[in-house]
Amino acid sequence: MTSQQHYEQVQKLSRDTRILQGIFSLLDWDQETYMPADAAGIRAEQRKLIAGLSHKGLVGRPFTNALSKLIDLKTGRILSKKLSEPQQASLRMWRRDYTHAKALPKSFVEEEAELSSQSMNAWHHAKQDDAFQQFAPFLEKQIALARKKAEYLGYKDHPYNALLDQYEPGATCAEINALFTPLRAHITKLVKTVQAKPPVDDNFLFGKFPYDSQMKFGLFVLDAMKYDLKKGRLDISGHPFSSSAHPYDSRITTRIDTTSVMSNVSAVMHEAGHAFYEMGLPVEQYGTPLGDAISLGMHESQSRWWETRIGLSKPFWNHFLPHLQQHFKGKFDHISLDQFYRAINKVIPCMIRIESDEVTYGLHIILRYELELALIEGSLSVRDLPEAWNAKMKELLGLTPKSNREGCLQDIHWSMGAFGYFPTYTLGNLYAGHLFQAFERDHTDWEKRVAKGDLSFIKEWLTQSVHQYGRQYSSKELLLKVTGKPFTADAYTKYLTKKHG
Amino acid sequence: MTSQQHYEQVQKLSRDTRILQGIFSLLDWDQETYMPADAAGIRAEQRKLIAGLSHKGLVGRPFTNALSKLIDLKTGRILSKKLSEPQQASLRMWRRDYTHAKALPKSFVEEEAELSSQSMNAWHHAKQDDAFQQFAPFLEKQIALARKKAEYLGYKDHPYNALLDQYEPGATCAEINALFTPLRAHITKLVKTVQAKPPVDDNFLFGKFPYDSQMKFGLFVLDAMKYDLKKGRLDISGHPFSSSAHPYDSRITTRIDTTSVMSNVSAVMHEAGHAFYEMGLPVEQYGTPLGDAISLGMHESQSRWWETRIGLSKPFWNHFLPHLQQHFKGKFDHISLDQFYRAINKVIPCMIRIESDEVTYGLHIILRYELELALIEGSLSVRDLPEAWNAKMKELLGLTPKSNREGCLQDIHWSMGAFGYFPTYTLGNLYAGHLFQAFERDHTDWEKRVAKGDLSFIKEWLTQSVHQYGRQYSSKELLLKVTGKPFTADAYTKYLTKKHG
Repeated sequence: MTSQQHYEQVQKLSRDTRILQGIFSLLDWDQETYMPADAAGIRAEQRKLIAGLSHKGLVGRPFTNALSKLIDLKTGRILSKKLSEPQQASLRMWRRDYTHAKALPKSFVEEEAELSSQSMNAWHHAKQDDAFQQFAPFLEKQIALARKKAEYLGYKDHPYNALLDQYEPGATCAEINALFTPLRAHITKLVKTVQAKPPVDDNFLFGKFPYDSQMKFGLFVLDAMKYDLKKGRLDISGHPFSSSAHPYDSRITTRIDTTSVMSNVSAVMHEAGHAFYEMGLPVEQYGTPLGDAISLGMHESQSRWWETRIGLSKPFWNHFLPHLQQHFKGKFDHISLDQFYRAINKVIPCMIRIESDEVTYGLHIILRYELELALIEGSLSVRDLPEAWNAKMKELLGLTPKSNREGCLQDIHWSMGAFGYFPTYTLGNLYAGHLFQAFERDHTDWEKRVAKGDLSFIKEWLTQSVHQYGRQYSSKELLLKVTGKPFTADAYTKYLTKKHG
Repeated sequence: MTSQQHYEQVQKLSRDTRILQGIFSLLDWDQETYMPADAAGIRAEQRKLIAGLSHKGLVGRPFTNALSKLIDLKTGRILSKKLSEPQQASLRMWRRDYTHAKALPKSFVEEEAELSSQSMNAWHHAKQDDAFQQFAPFLEKQIALARKKAEYLGYKDHPYNALLDQYEPGATCAEINALFTPLRAHITKLVKTVQAKPPVDDNFLFGKFPYDSQMKFGLFVLDAMKYDLKKGRLDISGHPFSSSAHPYDSRITTRIDTTSVMSNVSAVMHEAGHAFYEMGLPVEQYGTPLGDAISLGMHESQSRWWETRIGLSKPFWNHFLPHLQQHFKGKFDHISLDQFYRAINKVIPCMIRIESDEVTYGLHIILRYELELALIEGSLSVRDLPEAWNAKMKELLGLTPKSNREGCLQDIHWSMGAFGYFPTYTLGNLYAGHLFQAFERDHTDWEKRVAKGDLSFIKEWLTQSVHQYGRQYSSKELLLKVTGKPFTADAYTKYLTKKHG
């Protein structure tokens, strides 16, 4: 067989594994949207089975044999010189995935999938009942599992690095600390500057905003963004998310708070940003690393791009405010564009991460990062988490949650066992900031076009600059390639200061 | 290992296969309810993969080895005397499933799953556009595949017997003909008797019945039936169906025609009847044959029981008519119970099977049975199907469809490759008729109780009499066991004559 034939064989086997992962996504999507409550138990078994099969696909003999014809699985040396650059990048990523999967016993992967179903379910109920103690035993199991995972995967310096690396390849605590420490100081200072200014009136964003009108407006925005409903859906779930089984099946969810108009708009734009990444990946590479997203940080750069850089911009609302007025008759009749823009960009510490402004958002992430680091290290016990959460909330945001529901029970992530995930939210903001420099360079008139309601060129630019490459480049390589400058947090902090300082 | 330990091993392996089949059901449910249109291609691949894995589970070495310790796979002789009667029945059914699966190559099973996704999709579009020629090539492939399947499975007398046997174990054309020929004559005569009587006014069943009120009434009936929404759901699809991944995840769909009030009520009660069978199977037997339904005929006996024997009965509407009046204000104010009862039981030949009355329904099935027999034999070509359909419609029901949409494109079944399926609809009616004798014996006051809105004892009786046994007995064995009489069509034809003659 030639190298190309070997490559095609790897591709074929890998496609099956990717299809299984897509089925896994559908199981999750269904669990969060339509699944009957009592099906939680069998759903956990279904997830376990598919996770096991997909793991087997990655580490099983057929795939390993085929892959090892092209790359030395131990050293990473490419064994054929006849493959293209992208194909070689693909092989390196396949090896990475193989190495990770191989490090984890199948029984562990199955246990992980089953436990996360059960503990997501426990979290749902605990949040509903505001009963942290119901969730605590599951969280303890998840932490134990995460530690075990770090040991299996191996790490330098800190077990948390192994967890981080799953979501953001190559990232380390050291890097995160180097980014977060100055960011924390910068944001804290910025918040003080803002708080010294006269307060902004945003009362008109709250009141009664009927469910149906909110759904309609969400779909209206999606339509303008060119989110293709033949390749996706908008549904309702407790926690908004995007779920992709394939570029042609990339669904999103939102939540509707009938007392607040912006939470749905933000969620819809955020999740559509995620979906665009998945929809923009090259279909013909489905199942190869060239058909997958680089990292969660890069993913989040896409969602935050739409949610904040576009959805909180004045040009965007220049076009959409009149439509919002139409959707919610009588609500915004006397509100000017300037008033609206100031209101939606009001900086004010709040309890809920996903409802917080773009300035204080980073503090929410830093809070979670520091707490989960401590949970993994063992310096913080689950029992003490609510108190630690509240103390850190006070320290960073000056607030004290009235309940665990608006405190340490607010996010789904830990129930999924997703430790090391949160920092990628802030990386996403930083990456988006860095990328935006290139976008402004390429589209000097972007504000004019957006002000007319034209959004499709943004999606195209992101597909051309980011999505189309799959995992051919690392985050940092791609950030350099697109902008011509090595990645730093500067562009993002400058943006924050310029807008809010 | 002891026999019990071997049995437990078989059970464990079989459970994984059953879980895969449940995932397959979810893929189908999603395809018919929420899946974005462009995902049809990847969905076909997902189905193919899961079908292949589930086939492998049945014929793979681990399961075969474990099973062959307990039963001789060639002769069917039970090798251990230490197993209970139900366990022995279970082994015989496992062997049956194994033998069937073994007869089909994995590539065939995968091809079948993939093709049915594609051709269901083509059927959807062809029906929408009333364009039979779009669907024809897929139907041709499905027929070729069905013939090939019959050859793989083997048969006596007629290839159609192999197809029938998949859905109704042991059934043959000879048996179906022996039942259908007198039934055809009986129904035809009955229709003439009815047509000689003065026409029944059912105009008030048609008009404007808003979508939301119909959904609410459907859910109201489901609630009275004790359909547990923690273990199921009601959604909308083009063709109503029930879909079960587990007794705790048994979903149903309906369709809403806003010009007709009864089509939704019938669909909801029908599909809930199916779901009850799945929900009533013993959970602890999930994954063994004792946790599965006997046959499609028996399944249909449950759905038609609720749809016709209860949902078209006078006691039922004694309770529900006032509620219907409340749900559709002004629509039934001056309609008496007698008028309503006569209207919903009006016998009048119509074009659409699922909208037809219980008398002419059988003719719709006979039509399909005769046509699919000819398609499988090759005496009818796909090209000539629309004409043959219309001719037979004229012959049996005196009607000529205006379009293929209301003719040979009306049903989803052939697009799924489900040849041999249709006769089980009439078997279901006959089985329900036979079983009803025992129900009336056990609950002489059933009409009084139903007239008060009490339906739960019916569900309980069906669970006790039918559901709880899984596949321990064959249809005919169970019909005898429950009623004490061998199965014949007599009870059913007597019921029809008494009610409509």
